Amino acid sequence: MPPPLPVAFAAGAAGPWRIDRIEAVLGEGLPDAAHLAVSEGAAAAAAGGVWVLRGTTSNPRYSHRTELDALGAVQEGLGRKQATRAALIPISKSEAWWAMAQDERRAILEEGSRHIAIGLEYLPGVARRLHHGRDLGEAFDFLTWFEYAPEDADAFETLVRRLRRTPEWRHVTREVDIRLSRTVC
Amino acid sequence: MPPPLPVAFAAGAAGPWRIDRIEAVLGEGLPDAAHLAVSEGAAAAAAGGVWVLRGTTSNPRYSHRTELDALGAVQEGLGRKQATRAALIPISKSEAWWAMAQDERRAILEEGSRHIAIGLEYLPGVARRLHHGRDLGEAFDFLTWFEYAPEDADAFETLVRRLRRTPEWRHVTREVDIRLSRTVC
Repeated sequence: MPPPLPVAFAAGAAGPWRIDRIEAVLGEGLPDAAHLAVSEGAAAAAAGGVWVLRGTTSNPRYSHRTELDALGAVQEGLGRKQATRAALIPISKSEAWWAMAQDERRAILEEGSRHIAIGLEYLPGVARRLHHGRDLGEAFDFLTWFEYAPEDADAFETLVRRLRRTPEWRHVTREVDIRLSRTVC
Repeated sequence: MPPPLPVAFAAGAAGPWRIDRIEAVLGEGLPDAAHLAVSEGAAAAAAGGVWVLRGTTSNPRYSHRTELDALGAVQEGLGRKQATRAALIPISKSEAWWAMAQDERRAILEEGSRHIAIGLEYLPGVARRLHHGRDLGEAFDFLTWFEYAPEDADAFETLVRRLRRTPEWRHVTREVDIRLSRTVC
């Protein structure tokens, strides 16, 4: 469990990821841009562009030990050579969500929506990193970054579609879906 | 449940709270200073001094609905006229703590240590606000600010002593205890 890592996603004319499309799923979208650069740590603070989304990695907020062990046994890290597709999905949740107690949010997220269990089904193909923005005062509560190979693209679409149908997603108030690709280096 | 509020605790020559003592309970302490100013929101970003500790309020991370309701029924807010004593207790927890799953941390904090239940016993006399610093990259994971009247000072000492004896506190790696007072305005 590394310490919290500040991360900036900066859209503009340059960056290793080409932006293929930006879709406003719910609420306000984001301006078009050609490329995206992901910077971490001290470099994240200096990031600039057409738009910059910021968040930080953190400790697990909902996962139980059995779930963390199951995820840890199969998940792979970011930066795999074959993972030339990516998605950045910024979301915010309702004030009602944030006013809930821990047991109420956990019950919706996992017992009611199987968020952790569904994600597990798509490992190790779809690698994922969650970034928190709400406590930083950012526009989005969460920025989730996914990386996968072209042959896992259909599976990824299914993953996203399944999550959007869950009870948890009724608490999402804004969602943008940004798809990206890069050439093999 | 208000949105996250950035808060800065700035120690120096000025500020409405007089610093009565600074005790290094575990690990490195903090330099002496005469006064403390608490600033919130946009003002927090501009705060400066001999030392400045920063954090943000956030959503509940451990409390269940029954516990939030019990706390909400009796707790009082900051700024009460009679609450002329305060304590600022910055703490950090171990890497092992942060690597635990949510159910493991909850089990230690409440089922094993009764952190929420113990705090409830000292309401409404001791008002309290928790600020999170870890995801902001600050030196302390948590800054807890307490306000109470002089007649509740003995009860407050008991509260602090009881919490320090809990299994949860074995995961504390640094703790400073700052006591303050102000004249009635």
